[in-house]
Amino acid sequence: MSKKVVTLGEIMMRLSTPDYKRFVQAESLDITYGGGEANVSAALCNYGLESSFVSKVPDNPLGQAAINHLRRFGVDTQFVARGGNRLGLYFLEPGASMRASQVVYDRAGSSITEAEVDEFDFDKIFEGADWFHTSGITPAISDKGLALTEAALKAAKAKGITISIDVNYRKKLWSSEKAQEVMTRLCENADVCIGAETTLGFKSVENKYIDGKRDLSEYQTAFEQMTEKFGFKYIATNLRESHSASDNSFSVLVYGENRMYQTKEYDIRIVDRVGTGDSFASGFIYGLITGMSMDDAAEFGAAAAALKHTIPGDLNHATVAEIKTLVDGDGSGKVQR
Amino acid sequence: MSKKVVTLGEIMMRLSTPDYKRFVQAESLDITYGGGEANVSAALCNYGLESSFVSKVPDNPLGQAAINHLRRFGVDTQFVARGGNRLGLYFLEPGASMRASQVVYDRAGSSITEAEVDEFDFDKIFEGADWFHTSGITPAISDKGLALTEAALKAAKAKGITISIDVNYRKKLWSSEKAQEVMTRLCENADVCIGAETTLGFKSVENKYIDGKRDLSEYQTAFEQMTEKFGFKYIATNLRESHSASDNSFSVLVYGENRMYQTKEYDIRIVDRVGTGDSFASGFIYGLITGMSMDDAAEFGAAAAALKHTIPGDLNHATVAEIKTLVDGDGSGKVQR
Amino acid sequence: MSKKVVTLGEIMMRLSTPDYKRFVQAESLDITYGGGEANVSAALCNYGLESSFVSKVPDNPLGQAAINHLRRFGVDTQFVARGGNRLGLYFLEPGASMRASQVVYDRAGSSITEAEVDEFDFDKIFEGADWFHTSGITPAISDKGLALTEAALKAAKAKGITISIDVNYRKKLWSSEKAQEVMTRLCENADVCIGAETTLGFKSVENKYIDGKRDLSEYQTAFEQMTEKFGFKYIATNLRESHSASDNSFSVLVYGENRMYQTKEYDIRIVDRVGTGDSFASGFIYGLITGMSMDDAAEFGAAAAALKHTIPGDLNHATVAEIKTLVDGDGSGKVQR
Amino acid sequence: MSKKVVTLGEIMMRLSTPDYKRFVQAESLDITYGGGEANVSAALCNYGLESSFVSKVPDNPLGQAAINHLRRFGVDTQFVARGGNRLGLYFLEPGASMRASQVVYDRAGSSITEAEVDEFDFDKIFEGADWFHTSGITPAISDKGLALTEAALKAAKAKGITISIDVNYRKKLWSSEKAQEVMTRLCENADVCIGAETTLGFKSVENKYIDGKRDLSEYQTAFEQMTEKFGFKYIATNLRESHSASDNSFSVLVYGENRMYQTKEYDIRIVDRVGTGDSFASGFIYGLITGMSMDDAAEFGAAAAALKHTIPGDLNHATVAEIKTLVDGDGSGKVQR
Amino acid sequence: MSKKVVTLGEIMMRLSTPDYKRFVQAESLDITYGGGEANVSAALCNYGLESSFVSKVPDNPLGQAAINHLRRFGVDTQFVARGGNRLGLYFLEPGASMRASQVVYDRAGSSITEAEVDEFDFDKIFEGADWFHTSGITPAISDKGLALTEAALKAAKAKGITISIDVNYRKKLWSSEKAQEVMTRLCENADVCIGAETTLGFKSVENKYIDGKRDLSEYQTAFEQMTEKFGFKYIATNLRESHSASDNSFSVLVYGENRMYQTKEYDIRIVDRVGTGDSFASGFIYGLITGMSMDDAAEFGAAAAALKHTIPGDLNHATVAEIKTLVDGDGSGKVQR
Amino acid sequence: MSKKVVTLGEIMMRLSTPDYKRFVQAESLDITYGGGEANVSAALCNYGLESSFVSKVPDNPLGQAAINHLRRFGVDTQFVARGGNRLGLYFLEPGASMRASQVVYDRAGSSITEAEVDEFDFDKIFEGADWFHTSGITPAISDKGLALTEAALKAAKAKGITISIDVNYRKKLWSSEKAQEVMTRLCENADVCIGAETTLGFKSVENKYIDGKRDLSEYQTAFEQMTEKFGFKYIATNLRESHSASDNSFSVLVYGENRMYQTKEYDIRIVDRVGTGDSFASGFIYGLITGMSMDDAAEFGAAAAALKHTIPGDLNHATVAEIKTLVDGDGSGKVQR
Repeated sequence: MSKKVVTLGEIMMRLSTPDYKRFVQAESLDITYGGGEANVSAALCNYGLESSFVSKVPDNPLGQAAINHLRRFGVDTQFVARGGNRLGLYFLEPGASMRASQVVYDRAGSSITEAEVDEFDFDKIFEGADWFHTSGITPAISDKGLALTEAALKAAKAKGITISIDVNYRKKLWSSEKAQEVMTRLCENADVCIGAETTLGFKSVENKYIDGKRDLSEYQTAFEQMTEKFGFKYIATNLRESHSASDNSFSVLVYGENRMYQTKEYDIRIVDRVGTGDSFASGFIYGLITGMSMDDAAEFGAAAAALKHTIPGDLNHATVAEIKTLVDGDGSGKVQR
Repeated sequence: MSKKVVTLGEIMMRLSTPDYKRFVQAESLDITYGGGEANVSAALCNYGLESSFVSKVPDNPLGQAAINHLRRFGVDTQFVARGGNRLGLYFLEPGASMRASQVVYDRAGSSITEAEVDEFDFDKIFEGADWFHTSGITPAISDKGLALTEAALKAAKAKGITISIDVNYRKKLWSSEKAQEVMTRLCENADVCIGAETTLGFKSVENKYIDGKRDLSEYQTAFEQMTEKFGFKYIATNLRESHSASDNSFSVLVYGENRMYQTKEYDIRIVDRVGTGDSFASGFIYGLITGMSMDDAAEFGAAAAALKHTIPGDLNHATVAEIKTLVDGDGSGKVQR
Repeated sequence: MSKKVVTLGEIMMRLSTPDYKRFVQAESLDITYGGGEANVSAALCNYGLESSFVSKVPDNPLGQAAINHLRRFGVDTQFVARGGNRLGLYFLEPGASMRASQVVYDRAGSSITEAEVDEFDFDKIFEGADWFHTSGITPAISDKGLALTEAALKAAKAKGITISIDVNYRKKLWSSEKAQEVMTRLCENADVCIGAETTLGFKSVENKYIDGKRDLSEYQTAFEQMTEKFGFKYIATNLRESHSASDNSFSVLVYGENRMYQTKEYDIRIVDRVGTGDSFASGFIYGLITGMSMDDAAEFGAAAAALKHTIPGDLNHATVAEIKTLVDGDGSGKVQR
Repeated sequence: MSKKVVTLGEIMMRLSTPDYKRFVQAESLDITYGGGEANVSAALCNYGLESSFVSKVPDNPLGQAAINHLRRFGVDTQFVARGGNRLGLYFLEPGASMRASQVVYDRAGSSITEAEVDEFDFDKIFEGADWFHTSGITPAISDKGLALTEAALKAAKAKGITISIDVNYRKKLWSSEKAQEVMTRLCENADVCIGAETTLGFKSVENKYIDGKRDLSEYQTAFEQMTEKFGFKYIATNLRESHSASDNSFSVLVYGENRMYQTKEYDIRIVDRVGTGDSFASGFIYGLITGMSMDDAAEFGAAAAALKHTIPGDLNHATVAEIKTLVDGDGSGKVQR
Repeated sequence: MSKKVVTLGEIMMRLSTPDYKRFVQAESLDITYGGGEANVSAALCNYGLESSFVSKVPDNPLGQAAINHLRRFGVDTQFVARGGNRLGLYFLEPGASMRASQVVYDRAGSSITEAEVDEFDFDKIFEGADWFHTSGITPAISDKGLALTEAALKAAKAKGITISIDVNYRKKLWSSEKAQEVMTRLCENADVCIGAETTLGFKSVENKYIDGKRDLSEYQTAFEQMTEKFGFKYIATNLRESHSASDNSFSVLVYGENRMYQTKEYDIRIVDRVGTGDSFASGFIYGLITGMSMDDAAEFGAAAAALKHTIPGDLNHATVAEIKTLVDGDGSGKVQR
Repeated sequence: MSKKVVTLGEIMMRLSTPDYKRFVQAESLDITYGGGEANVSAALCNYGLESSFVSKVPDNPLGQAAINHLRRFGVDTQFVARGGNRLGLYFLEPGASMRASQVVYDRAGSSITEAEVDEFDFDKIFEGADWFHTSGITPAISDKGLALTEAALKAAKAKGITISIDVNYRKKLWSSEKAQEVMTRLCENADVCIGAETTLGFKSVENKYIDGKRDLSEYQTAFEQMTEKFGFKYIATNLRESHSASDNSFSVLVYGENRMYQTKEYDIRIVDRVGTGDSFASGFIYGLITGMSMDDAAEFGAAAAALKHTIPGDLNHATVAEIKTLVDGDGSGKVQR
């Protein structure tokens, strides 16, 4: 029987400038929809699993359009509540070469920020679920978002569902102190920890990453400490080298089973950089939930993330077969007839 | 020397679906920028006058893009303050035939709603100005918007500048009671009153308009009473017959000099309905400020509004010569080589 | 509890020229997906019912894209089989004024034409279903299509599910003799008959329609005979007057409960003519299944069809509220703010 | 054997604003190519005849693109000389409703204006030709253009080829006096005269046309005089009523065989107004050259012109079958499946 | 006098996703037309030769559009028969970086697959021809396609026309056994053999190519054997290194005059990979037919192929001058003003 | 108080093919507007300075659109005269990889080429100006252009305004002899000399540049001689390495204060190559006028130019903050959230 993953977070309308135009030049914007957890749900459906996304959108055509976008790619949206004031937005200006991509968030006051816990029936939501995934974004955007996340984690934990958390830190949303305090509390529920370890107060590794160093021994130390403190089964973090907005190198470092593993590194010509971290998360979850070894799951996730860089939009539309082909070493890009 | 008109209000990014698509179908949105008073300023510049627009936009690329849009068409934007949280947005789904156009406003918390009076130096702003135009929108969106409007009206009045107010009533923004109370107070400063007379509590004419009747005698009564109460020099209102989202008839009724005048009526195939009321306002102001008679100014305004229906976006890009050609009776649309 | 409607038919990729270009001018084609029964399912989901679409598409990205299009709008696609050689296509060149729209079908050999009955578990498919809708297209395209349709009708009948059939006749697919023979057999299962009555051999009404006459007495005679022969509960047919490719008048004639009823007639500026008949069918089914009277259901269907003319693509994206507003008489198309 | 028509004139790049945008709003321009005589050649090829277009374009990629556009639709371009300074351009802003379409010509100094007679081998050009068509545009644009036209007419006359001239008068190109003098001289060679009769100095009919009167008796008088003076076999002129830029009525008046004939009048929703006169010319020539009666040829031409209004670009892409369907009375625009 | 090359094959409509979208994301498709032999004809016309393309397309607007595409670029299409059921299609999803381009062929049952030999008058077709080019595709798609190819080869051979064959092997069209048997028979007529040598059963070189090895000695052996067996005057094959879907290295290996020659290798940023092999073929033929040495012809072909990678669509629009500039070493891409 | 820079030159409409299409493939063209001096003015306004652009455009909508484009980005256009025959145009076909970008100029007879000196009130134009910038283009296009440039230089010199000249040489506009003679005369007024030193007759350095050599000693010699002859305060030239149309390396060499300085070199993936030289000029001027050292100004200019390569259109829309970030070494292109 198919595995089922529940995610909770915000789905935003993304409005991006076409043809490398800057915001001040644009006369139209391309629409897609995304958000860390929604991206994970859509990718998992794409890989053949079931996934239900929990959120709240306004009861207007824009909210409906966001739901439709997820349904289109197979996500179960029956637990997306309707109401509140507005759909969160973000404006994206894709960069090129040494010009960085710019994101202007416009998500304050969105429906999810004012969602009440009792709008969601977690008993029903987690029925038959094998995994729950969420991130540090919703807790950061509002007190209600935090309460909602905690309620979901508590319910998932009670049901014995595996939990993964993407430990994002967005400095425009809250202070590092508050982030650390809250995320530390939330992570106590998590089995798998993904991303920015500094959010949890593990400073030295962050510095290594800023220097672009690959001195994995310090990562190992940090991961050991994190494991000790939180009891994570797996920890994973991206090792990205941003040569320019057009070219990145990407690999992934995972820790678990008392050891560390680094995946292959991919050199990538970027079509769309957004959502690649979520694509790793979805691939790693896919791997673990379908019984791959830690290393294989990490390689699957890294290859999924690499392919996402070549696909426009926040969602990953690479198939399992395509990802496995890349894991197996064929990145030649030869025409498939 | 060129006449100068100052306007005060909000400038929003407008995001509209292309090719008659509904919101749930759209994959891109066309950008323009607009807002009642900004539309008036841009049209007046287009007609050859000077016009300065007073507002506040966020200090980010979207705010800059809004300013650029007005500058492109000649508006003086030096008095647009920078700061605050976000640019107001509105989403437009253009209708066709019996399917009405839909507007989803997303302007709560925009920069202008939190602007302080002392961010604007009205002495400098009104230097050399001949006319001040504003509307009932800004007072409705926030207390600060009301305070700002009042301060501007007071300053304009003190300088003896002619004042016009577009008496809009937007039921989603405030109650009719509050609207009536506030607009009544504001209109005491106005020389020219444009639009929805019921905002000021003149109920019976509204009813006539709902019935689509053209029993102008009741309009006359209402206008006489309004003139008596507020001392308006001119009152103008649109007489629109909406046959469908694709076809409207449009004329204008003006009152002043103790008499009423109805302009020619135009039967219009609609390209873009938004901003046509503002286009009348700008044309009427243009006529009066350049010394036309009341009737001629009204005809100029009505023809300007008619032509705006054929032009995409909120702004009117018809020239004075084109408007005069239409006033003079040539609506044949023959190719101009 | 929500009502559930099952439909069976083909879903095709529609490739249409933009901006009124002719095929020989086009450099790109717009994609949507459609087919009579799929259109009905999508509209019913849009109105808030559940609907499952039964079909077969190739196991390639084009087949997946067709499924995604239906999922996007809420259709349950779990019973769409995968396999076969190709996705059916149709090319559309939208007309204007006296230039007719052109359709080039390219559906021969599509997956549904080679589907086997045993690929579908009708017991499961009809579980909880209240209504089954299909048409004369699938029986016409291949012997296997006919076998599949018959199997579905038999299964639905056995479960006591209400059955509606759109009696289309496509002269390029089969002879009128074969159509009459097959459709007569299939209609014996139907409760509701929609469309082209001549397919069943009722010639005289067709002639009246060709003459554009509205001598409803002959329609009445035909409908009485059809009711007698087939035991239809309701018969419905469109009364379209095609003034040009840009302008149509549209109303609907229904027969049932021993009487005939003609809906209001709508004068329509056409955005997209395709799928309007299916939109009537979906609206009529919606009305009947939700307990409206025959007349109200017909009016709901006619208004749904009228609105579909203003929406690009095969699917109807008008909401129940919008359709009811039109039924209630407001076709003014005034901007909804 | 297929009939062959030679035309001589200018081919220009046409740059038009999309989506009813005004020039000051446009961020892109759509390209087609056209010019009166080139339009006639392309339409004739479309109807199944052979047609060779004689002109000169610069030896650069823009000149090549113009040639390619004609080749694409079957025109023989082997006699288009290469060289000179630039390709003629014209900018088109399509109008709507009471807003007229605007054309900005930018053709001064184009290659054809500086073409020398000896760049063209008229013996070879007219080999096997049955008809020669040209207009009053090329003689107006430069002395060399006049010399070229005269040489072509002389050569065609010498070969006994039927000659038609579209007697255009473009007031921005030359004075009415010069136009009258030159065109009078050129028309002495012509068998068929199309269009603006006043160019030849027949004032009174022009006045009637301005008044929009259909007092055909005066047309008759003028045509009789023109026939007497020039020996025209046929004279044809458009009777257009421009209700707006969106809606025109169109019929044609022809004179020949000592009588006048007016075609059916078409009420048209306009997609693209440009080139409709040329479309009539091509249809009339097609009719005459393929042996239709004068009246049938005129009806064919009028229907061709009517259909052209519904097709974007300068060229007519309606087929002979489609035109005949319209001549036979079916302008219902019903979908052709 | 200009040289003339006849080609025979299929012309397909190509429908490709824009902006690196995947099929499941696309809302529109860009149209071009192509096919191996049609691509060769168009390129040769572009280089200034004459070329006639022999094929069959349906007698509908899509078939006409395919013909128009070739005519636009100068190809003689008088020998393209009309009729049959459908135009062959292929859907292209351009890849990027490690994501490979995907092609979905939809060509079964196309008009050329059912063409009869007696629809083509090869005596007339080869009148004045200097060269005949075809490939292994048409023989693979149907028995009639094979019969047609054989008839053409026989007629060309009888007239002493130089013959080149592109020995493509498409595993979805036929088995390698059948391919080898048929192509071996066909190649007995050929003077020049281009491409996939393994089709003819020369296994070892294929292996070398898969390994990406440049051990030219084995190529030499194979080519010597092929020459011995078939009497080829020249054999040519591409040496492509596919680093990713965005970056390829490309050179060409030719054999003839008892020796082997490898061209310069180009490192290419890919705009459109499709048709580059055909571009080499056309360039090599151009070189040989215009009297270049084998080495120069190969270099011309390789440079033509390299430039094709930078041009959207299947056809090569690089000029002879541009190709020669690249052959001469200037690939700097400096702006040409 | 803000610094003010006046520039004088031509503003052209730029029409460029989208999506790497060649001219012969294009069906639409993207519009921007540009010209060396206009580009400098727009960039300076973008950096926060005031800048007035002096030119002449036709009194038609195309001329207005050009003015609007500059106003949009803050340029003062009050001194752009109206009249004359046409707006200068240039057609751009962007290249890729080894295919060079092509420019087709179509500027002969544009309004600026026929502008009279007395249409410009230089006293008023230079009021409050700190800097005047022009180039060798306007003197080359016509005698009136030369007279206008000389008059402007004389007026600026008389007011003691700093003068910079971009010493462009366009071989299609005039001979190198005439260029050298005229530019030598004009440069006697200049404080800062930018670009192609050979225009002034310094041959040897040009040769070095063609060889791509970086033997700066010869540059130094040339610059010393130029400084001696003209009294330039600063000389600057680009050191571009064009690896392909997609990839360039770019740095800048400046001379002044008796020494030479070479900036950092940037490796760039090109989005739009046009206007990058002007972007350097504007950045260098910005640096010098705001009090940076020569080296810092050069680095600012080089980084501005590097960023321009990543922005579509002729104008630079990079902000001062973005440029400084790049100068400070962060070209990583990381997403800015």
